[in-house]
Amino acid sequence: MRTHRLLLNGLGNVGRRFVQLLRERSELLEERHQVRVLLVGAADSSGAIYDPSGLDLDTLLRTKAAERGVGELPGAVPGQAITCLIDHHGADLVLEAAPTNLWNGQPGLDVALEALRRKIPVVMASKGPVVLAFPELAALSDWTDPSLPSLRFSGAVGGCLPAINLTHRVLTGCHIHRLEGVLNLSTGIYLTRMEEGLDLDAAIAEAQKAGLAEADPSLDVDGWDLAAKLCILANTVLRQPTRLEDIQRHGLRDLAQGEPRNARMRGERILMLARAELTENGYRLSVGPETLRPDHPFFPLQMGASGLLCDTDIQGRQVVLNADQGPMGTAAAMFRDMIEICEP
Amino acid sequence: MRTHRLLLNGLGNVGRRFVQLLRERSELLEERHQVRVLLVGAADSSGAIYDPSGLDLDTLLRTKAAERGVGELPGAVPGQAITCLIDHHGADLVLEAAPTNLWNGQPGLDVALEALRRKIPVVMASKGPVVLAFPELAALSDWTDPSLPSLRFSGAVGGCLPAINLTHRVLTGCHIHRLEGVLNLSTGIYLTRMEEGLDLDAAIAEAQKAGLAEADPSLDVDGWDLAAKLCILANTVLRQPTRLEDIQRHGLRDLAQGEPRNARMRGERILMLARAELTENGYRLSVGPETLRPDHPFFPLQMGASGLLCDTDIQGRQVVLNADQGPMGTAAAMFRDMIEICEP
Repeated sequence: MRTHRLLLNGLGNVGRRFVQLLRERSELLEERHQVRVLLVGAADSSGAIYDPSGLDLDTLLRTKAAERGVGELPGAVPGQAITCLIDHHGADLVLEAAPTNLWNGQPGLDVALEALRRKIPVVMASKGPVVLAFPELAALSDWTDPSLPSLRFSGAVGGCLPAINLTHRVLTGCHIHRLEGVLNLSTGIYLTRMEEGLDLDAAIAEAQKAGLAEADPSLDVDGWDLAAKLCILANTVLRQPTRLEDIQRHGLRDLAQGEPRNARMRGERILMLARAELTENGYRLSVGPETLRPDHPFFPLQMGASGLLCDTDIQGRQVVLNADQGPMGTAAAMFRDMIEICEP
Repeated sequence: MRTHRLLLNGLGNVGRRFVQLLRERSELLEERHQVRVLLVGAADSSGAIYDPSGLDLDTLLRTKAAERGVGELPGAVPGQAITCLIDHHGADLVLEAAPTNLWNGQPGLDVALEALRRKIPVVMASKGPVVLAFPELAALSDWTDPSLPSLRFSGAVGGCLPAINLTHRVLTGCHIHRLEGVLNLSTGIYLTRMEEGLDLDAAIAEAQKAGLAEADPSLDVDGWDLAAKLCILANTVLRQPTRLEDIQRHGLRDLAQGEPRNARMRGERILMLARAELTENGYRLSVGPETLRPDHPFFPLQMGASGLLCDTDIQGRQVVLNADQGPMGTAAAMFRDMIEICEP
């Protein structure tokens, strides 16, 4: 059995859980999938560490749990980036789990480009690179040519919800005429509380207090995060070259005071929805709050759940729903992408 | 671009729609998937026809639409089986869409075994072979060894519902502790009418009159069809060697008179459910009518819809739902399996 040498960038909530999975599931990987992996290098914003015989996963996890950086580990190079490890040592797979921003795609974009140029497959959990540079990434990967290295990012669109899988693997041979997605967890939390009567700012403050919301909630509230996910789906599976600014975007601040509560009292619900509708000029793409009736498959979604719906010609309506596991769900998505790439 | 030579067995509701898709979507196949296919042979119970330069799909469809058999076509061999074509001419892919029975798996089982022994990949829409002989089929195919020919049967478990895809492709790396499925369309139709007050026999008679039910409804009503689908899931994705008789089976005749209607009046629903529950001794497998509450993801399922739910450790609850397209859905599942196998 071949051993795949892994490099991992990013050891936050997602990256650490991915390392936990590596530690706990090596038998499952070998027995079920004939996959053997070895984490030979890792990096966070503090530096990088490399060991060709494999990193000590316990030490790595303990260090991060103590809120210390990789750069502080014995043998690490403070300030070194994962791209240096890719250049100096190569790898069989590069995993990217650092938070990237939507405006420049960094640091994930450089990591992915560096790896793909060196013919190394890449698994990403971050949205930025795909949102900003899908054509460039596709040209270097199996999205354009099956002989090029694989690029997978199933965790970037709704954690472990099989959104990319559904559209890319299941709907093959179909024409999709409508796509709807509930893909942003934070707005689901805010709207649930707003249904109960809180106003938006109070719902945000409460979620921040409980550690469930970002310090800057505008990416979620103003629809940017959801638009980024729709942008990925549009580029990759709807095959429509799309930039973030091509997506019509509304957010929770566009709702009138009390609207979620009023909807609930009418027996309806308001959710933040990503939508693609096929028109004569391609897909019309939008995100924003929409009112759903009880017969909609997303109506029963609880806080923290996500969903994707596609109306097609020959497969009818296909729906996937996930009651998400937060960062573990995204780590699990990276784990399954890794298996898909490494399986013989 | 390589041309894949196809042989198709079975030209009933599913097989004919598959031929329609071949006729209508050759451009889509080439442009999106770099797949070129040519149907060189086909068979039904009346005989077989072969032409190395490709069958005339229009003639084939017109003949079947006129309720005539393949054996009546000019150049056909009356009474010849598809296995003769496999033996004499080989192929790049064999597609099996004949109705098979659950007790001996024929004719699909012989077709699949013959093709796999000759290293030819197989796509099946029929349940029988997988229910009865999965270990034998797996030993000859990529279910045990990636260098052996592919065997796909995504249309055998709920038409185009991505049941096998979810469990085999998406839940990789997970432990599944519960699986629930609504996978039998006929009982969904009967139960909907029973909720409205009809008794079972009246619901069956009505569906038969509308062409929506088999002449012999017992396979559906007594849970055999659903048990067969659960048997496939158990063998393939739960990795538990299972025979049909290992599955605890109840049917609609086990319901007391008026139960579906009473459930509806209480705000609940009764659906025929396939269930796998992980215990200390492996999965406990059962099929039968179960009462669902409104917060269950299957509660809103309409007549003709299907669903699969899996509770897992690291991906939480994953659900797929499909509003099925009947025989076209199953043909679409064969079509996507074909693409997966033929894609470069």
